[in-house]
Amino acid sequence: MSWAALEQRAREVVERCRAAGVRLAVAEACTGGLIAASLTGVPGSSAVLERGLVPYSNESKEELLGVPRELFVAHGAVSPEGVRAMAEGLLARAPVQLTLAETGIAGPTGGTPSKPVGLVFLAVARQDAPTVVERHVFPGDRDAVRHGAAVRGLELILEQLGRET
Amino acid sequence: MSWAALEQRAREVVERCRAAGVRLAVAEACTGGLIAASLTGVPGSSAVLERGLVPYSNESKEELLGVPRELFVAHGAVSPEGVRAMAEGLLARAPVQLTLAETGIAGPTGGTPSKPVGLVFLAVARQDAPTVVERHVFPGDRDAVRHGAAVRGLELILEQLGRET
Repeated sequence: MSWAALEQRAREVVERCRAAGVRLAVAEACTGGLIAASLTGVPGSSAVLERGLVPYSNESKEELLGVPRELFVAHGAVSPEGVRAMAEGLLARAPVQLTLAETGIAGPTGGTPSKPVGLVFLAVARQDAPTVVERHVFPGDRDAVRHGAAVRGLELILEQLGRET
Repeated sequence: MSWAALEQRAREVVERCRAAGVRLAVAEACTGGLIAASLTGVPGSSAVLERGLVPYSNESKEELLGVPRELFVAHGAVSPEGVRAMAEGLLARAPVQLTLAETGIAGPTGGTPSKPVGLVFLAVARQDAPTVVERHVFPGDRDAVRHGAAVRGLELILEQLGRET
């Protein structure tokens, strides 16, 4: 996997957050730690990243993020409702100004006609603005889907930070 | 950063855990998500990894792992006592048979004469065996330290699983 794009975006996020005095927390499902790993690869990131979570089981999404089990039953974990609940649940629990949540189907199995492999939802929740939710379908294999989702997640943070400068 | 060694070890961990019916949880400080990202890169890892945590702030180590603040004051977060408390705290909270915890000083700054850059502690805690703690000093830059610590963490899981086969 090429790390260059991810590393570059991670550096930008850490720099912008440091300049703005913003602390972050992230919750990742199909990216599974890639976003946290890219951010923590940047020296000085401990001033920016408060915590990263990879709540891989539904049990852990409930315990760590307060996402109710009923939501998964009604909508599935990979849904706009699911990712919004993850981002907002994390914002309610972590002492940060901004959270990023991600959930998706990295493949190679697990896709359905309505939820194909490559489907990813991203959400940014903030103390001072409405939650933003995005839907993407990334092409390629498991690595490509995870990488694409991680890069786009960092870009979404940058865009949301840009709104206040 | 070269992913080959990390990917290979992650595949072995997922295969061995699946075969043994063992579920894992990991808590990473200086590796910052690399271990979770490598494990979740393996198709089928959702049957093995229950959760991954990157408790970057001391607050989150306390909240997510139950590590008491006094322990950090007495020993520092990067200490055998700290990593043991992380692994055992995670084991007490997650529905898994085995946990891996990691804490270290990735650099380039943050080192001291007694705790140099590259110092990493790893611990594996299990329901059915005493906790194992290791101390390492990995050479090289931030990437090299993080990568070395992540690979060794996965190897430690493999060694501990090997004891029962």
